[in-house]
Amino acid sequence: MLIHERVDVLVVEDNESERGSIVQILQSSIRDANVKAVSDGPEALDFLFGRGAWTDRLGEESPRLILLDLEMPGADGFSVLGQIRSLEASEDVLNLTPVVIFTSSHEAGDVSKSYRCGANSYIMKPLSYPDFQAVVETIGRYWLDHNRAAN
Amino acid sequence: MLIHERVDVLVVEDNESERGSIVQILQSSIRDANVKAVSDGPEALDFLFGRGAWTDRLGEESPRLILLDLEMPGADGFSVLGQIRSLEASEDVLNLTPVVIFTSSHEAGDVSKSYRCGANSYIMKPLSYPDFQAVVETIGRYWLDHNRAAN
Repeated sequence: MLIHERVDVLVVEDNESERGSIVQILQSSIRDANVKAVSDGPEALDFLFGRGAWTDRLGEESPRLILLDLEMPGADGFSVLGQIRSLEASEDVLNLTPVVIFTSSHEAGDVSKSYRCGANSYIMKPLSYPDFQAVVETIGRYWLDHNRAAN
Repeated sequence: MLIHERVDVLVVEDNESERGSIVQILQSSIRDANVKAVSDGPEALDFLFGRGAWTDRLGEESPRLILLDLEMPGADGFSVLGQIRSLEASEDVLNLTPVVIFTSSHEAGDVSKSYRCGANSYIMKPLSYPDFQAVVETIGRYWLDHNRAAN
């Protein structure tokens, strides 16, 4: 029995201020969006695969979008993305959850590594708040209003 | 020596009317967009990998976006996508070109198969022309104005 409403977006962001902003922007711009945020990679993986503090989510549907920061203490975004794709492969649901990298890095190496690791999209965080807000809205609208997720 | 301007979008669509509409919408909504369209999978692969009639494109940069229909005579979209990812792997540039499936199919099996084959996004073609136009503009803006492609 599924006991939770489907999560639309899982935000994985270690910066508390940015994490709060992203959640607030998505919730205010996408009607009825169910947004969940975690602050590091290990909690993201526990949430996605129903482990640790999130065993009651075992068997729940994947989010329709994961918004993933690259630079995080402990497990960085590449490691988290690699583990998502690897765990999906072991459950035969390879590549099914759209992952957008949302980062301050504009290093070409980070861009190509993200796609190689299985990212669906790579978006740089704008520096000004109005631009940041507009881009988060654009990401939310594209992936929730237009893109069709599997399952 | 690179002899062509970088192609921003490669449209792979067998329906002549839709192909023309997509090109026109992208060119009129995205400033300076360099859009190229082909009508089937084999020509798309020749274009992307500099083969057949497109040997002079060997070594050119990949498009920043491939918009790929699923239902096409000869090689369908899954086959084309599979060959793109396989040829990328053989050149060690795996998953580097964003591919958006743009299709009339709303079959859940087609959605999940697309992601498994390495699609970045799956968008259904709206039935009405105004909606079709708005969605093509949204796709173009997201992938050309916001997404960062590798290379």
